[in-house]
Amino acid sequence: MAKDFSTREENYSKWYNDIVQRAGLAENSAVRGCMVIKPYGYAIWEKMQAALDKMFKDTGHSNAYFPLFIPKSFFSREADHVEGFAKECAVVTHYRLKNAPDGRGVVVDETAKLEEELVIRPTSETIIWDTYRQWVQSYRDLPILVNQWANVVRWEMRTRMFLRTAEFLWQEGHTAHATKEEALEETYRMLDVYADFAENHMAIPVLKGIKSENERFAGALETFCIEALMQDGKALQAGTSHFLGQNFAKAFDVKFASKEGSLEYVWATSWGVSTRLVGALIMAHSDDNGLVLPPKLAPIQCVIVPIYKSREQYDQVCEKAREISDRLQEQGIRVKLDDRDTHKPGWKFNEYEFKGVPLRLVIGPRDVEKSTVELARRDTLEKQVLAMDRLTEVVPGLLEDIQKGLYQKALAFREENTREANSWEEFKEILDEKGGFIMAHWDGTAETEQKIKEETKATVRCIPLDDNKENGRCVYSGKPSERRVVFARAY
Amino acid sequence: MAKDFSTREENYSKWYNDIVQRAGLAENSAVRGCMVIKPYGYAIWEKMQAALDKMFKDTGHSNAYFPLFIPKSFFSREADHVEGFAKECAVVTHYRLKNAPDGRGVVVDETAKLEEELVIRPTSETIIWDTYRQWVQSYRDLPILVNQWANVVRWEMRTRMFLRTAEFLWQEGHTAHATKEEALEETYRMLDVYADFAENHMAIPVLKGIKSENERFAGALETFCIEALMQDGKALQAGTSHFLGQNFAKAFDVKFASKEGSLEYVWATSWGVSTRLVGALIMAHSDDNGLVLPPKLAPIQCVIVPIYKSREQYDQVCEKAREISDRLQEQGIRVKLDDRDTHKPGWKFNEYEFKGVPLRLVIGPRDVEKSTVELARRDTLEKQVLAMDRLTEVVPGLLEDIQKGLYQKALAFREENTREANSWEEFKEILDEKGGFIMAHWDGTAETEQKIKEETKATVRCIPLDDNKENGRCVYSGKPSERRVVFARAY
Repeated sequence: MAKDFSTREENYSKWYNDIVQRAGLAENSAVRGCMVIKPYGYAIWEKMQAALDKMFKDTGHSNAYFPLFIPKSFFSREADHVEGFAKECAVVTHYRLKNAPDGRGVVVDETAKLEEELVIRPTSETIIWDTYRQWVQSYRDLPILVNQWANVVRWEMRTRMFLRTAEFLWQEGHTAHATKEEALEETYRMLDVYADFAENHMAIPVLKGIKSENERFAGALETFCIEALMQDGKALQAGTSHFLGQNFAKAFDVKFASKEGSLEYVWATSWGVSTRLVGALIMAHSDDNGLVLPPKLAPIQCVIVPIYKSREQYDQVCEKAREISDRLQEQGIRVKLDDRDTHKPGWKFNEYEFKGVPLRLVIGPRDVEKSTVELARRDTLEKQVLAMDRLTEVVPGLLEDIQKGLYQKALAFREENTREANSWEEFKEILDEKGGFIMAHWDGTAETEQKIKEETKATVRCIPLDDNKENGRCVYSGKPSERRVVFARAY
Repeated sequence: MAKDFSTREENYSKWYNDIVQRAGLAENSAVRGCMVIKPYGYAIWEKMQAALDKMFKDTGHSNAYFPLFIPKSFFSREADHVEGFAKECAVVTHYRLKNAPDGRGVVVDETAKLEEELVIRPTSETIIWDTYRQWVQSYRDLPILVNQWANVVRWEMRTRMFLRTAEFLWQEGHTAHATKEEALEETYRMLDVYADFAENHMAIPVLKGIKSENERFAGALETFCIEALMQDGKALQAGTSHFLGQNFAKAFDVKFASKEGSLEYVWATSWGVSTRLVGALIMAHSDDNGLVLPPKLAPIQCVIVPIYKSREQYDQVCEKAREISDRLQEQGIRVKLDDRDTHKPGWKFNEYEFKGVPLRLVIGPRDVEKSTVELARRDTLEKQVLAMDRLTEVVPGLLEDIQKGLYQKALAFREENTREANSWEEFKEILDEKGGFIMAHWDGTAETEQKIKEETKATVRCIPLDDNKENGRCVYSGKPSERRVVFARAY
């Protein structure tokens, strides 16, 4: 077990950074706040993309691509939107460089100044709704169900790899509907898609809920979210689905002729998840031995490490290993046979353990003789010796077990770390001593939420989408409340 | 047949724009030179991406992601590179907007000026080689075989949808090698991958060759390319693979300890294709009835249009159509059943013909009775009536036929339009009267190429990668030449 990196106990934040770096997921770049996503980290994102993209298409959506640039004036059209995003925008002002007068390097060519500055998209509602105006005339043109995979930029001051970076990769769905009901239905549908993805692919249980006014997307009437709990007891917003009402249709004058012939503004939704999910995945499952990946998103599901002393043994063992690799691959399992002669087996064990590969097969000369193989699980670190011809039967089931096991473990953790607080003292005590989700009554006002945040750094993560009504009094203000909401400190 | 759009004969350029617009591939956006790629156009790009991505991975490459922004100073490190790209760069100078003093909209916050301006990547050699410096210590760290799918920006003054836009989507491979030979081998390998893709997926024959000095990538020692011929007799560069030598390794100080222990600069390649390929695809195959798509890249390979008068007929016909659709889909064919009651069959025929769907099945009440179906090919416009139960046997073969047929047609066109010119008069005559590829002797100098370009707008498209040596004299200067090269006017 690698011991030259932090444990969760010692320093959770350093533990996270160590995993990102040592597992080869990402690194900081020369550009402030922007990361390089390395091949292994990007491969996880590709698996996420593939699964989500299929879910989007299965629910009737198509992909499209809209410009990176947004004319500055578009931003001001929707008052809340500009308020929410103007303070963190990268702005393009010029379109040419020229040789510096002193001959050293290049400088901005001041004669190539844009008449109107362009903002790098922090999100694309404005440019997309400016486009939808051309696409919609009648109710027959609706709904529009479009998604975009893209990079966006938000000039964050404090950044952390995957969790908060100036540039990040995401998908943003933007849909247009004839009625409020349809738009709301879409908002819920995509929230369910995200919850399904988080639970069944990422193996992370999530709470579905509505955001408070303070945490609502700038320009939305209502923001729905999925909230996950990390191992340090902090919450992480893993996806949002916004009901935008007619705000953007009004800002960009997008109307349609209804069946009845009247001109109406179009109803909108938008929804997105980002590379932040890779951060959530790391923090939800990994342990003090490194990354732990759920099989569905693992770039390598099963690694095979040969053990040998002589060249002859190497050939024998590798031949058998290749046979096994081929057979598992035929079953659709992502296998890697690491037959490199430049690295020792022990180094390889550490490497793949640290990289969170769910299963490891080890084959040595005696295994070849006895037709056996040693099988190790990354999640429990359990090992077993198995007859080779049972592998194709055992491995798929084991991968499923690991997938389910990780989910169950994360669910149990969340349940252990969800507590009710019935007084302000209790609230602060739980927060400081245990963290986790706190179910507490709240008076529903932005003022109270703001004061709680100032005093404790905790915010309302969401108002859960369930029917658990219960009369009580706000833990902070003592005013009446109809239900408990979820508080936590959050990423 | 739709007649409210241009034919190739009447106005080739307008014909192209009409297809892009009417087939729903793309449209201009509110941002100068940037297009919106609409769902149908993007679906073609997704098919291209999927095929190329598999080819890259099959040749050992992984994907990664590097920052959108490049510090201005990085640009100046490689002299040719900055010369080639500085004049068309979008430059970020500020990172915040604020409310305008007069209360109308937002303005750039001058207090949020970047210390060093950031350039939006026009290509990523500089930021990537700055990163590779951290990745490479010894020969064991090589080769690095990485690809990136990304958006890039080049501030072009004259833009055309897909063919030349300020922002475009592409992939850029960036590899690092221990030896010159390995890097050259990689350069050729990826050129072959591109040629394979162009010919076997896009159904477009291409010439493989080397670029002249004038047309070489800024910073490369040698640029290899594939060149295709469009129906108006103009050439289109469809992909490039660059041998970068040690230029970027020297500019960013990327050295490795060789097996022998000496410190050496790393050898580099880069290679890319872009959404420009969608433009090539349109121009290579389409006709005066609209888009024609090769089956391998068609988002819909087979459309089914039901014909009916009564509700009862609709139900019967659609039931049968769904059966057929299911059966074809089981074979992996991309089928769309257009059972919308809001559009007439004639409208649908036009629509899918215009959108280039390779096969159309029509089912009416009499077909249901007789268990037949009408099958129409988009490429030849031929129709046949077929027994329903033969469909699963016939359709896959037909799609293959169409794929091959399009390639053969494009190949015949290129052969008819490749001509030798043996004098300057003949050169100009062919160029003005026929266009196409002109095989002519050239003295190999940049000066002569420049003069030919000024007088005729034709350039050396490539020096073909074949062994056809032949002594002759440059058509322009009369100086000796060892082989014919390919001239053409180009997109």
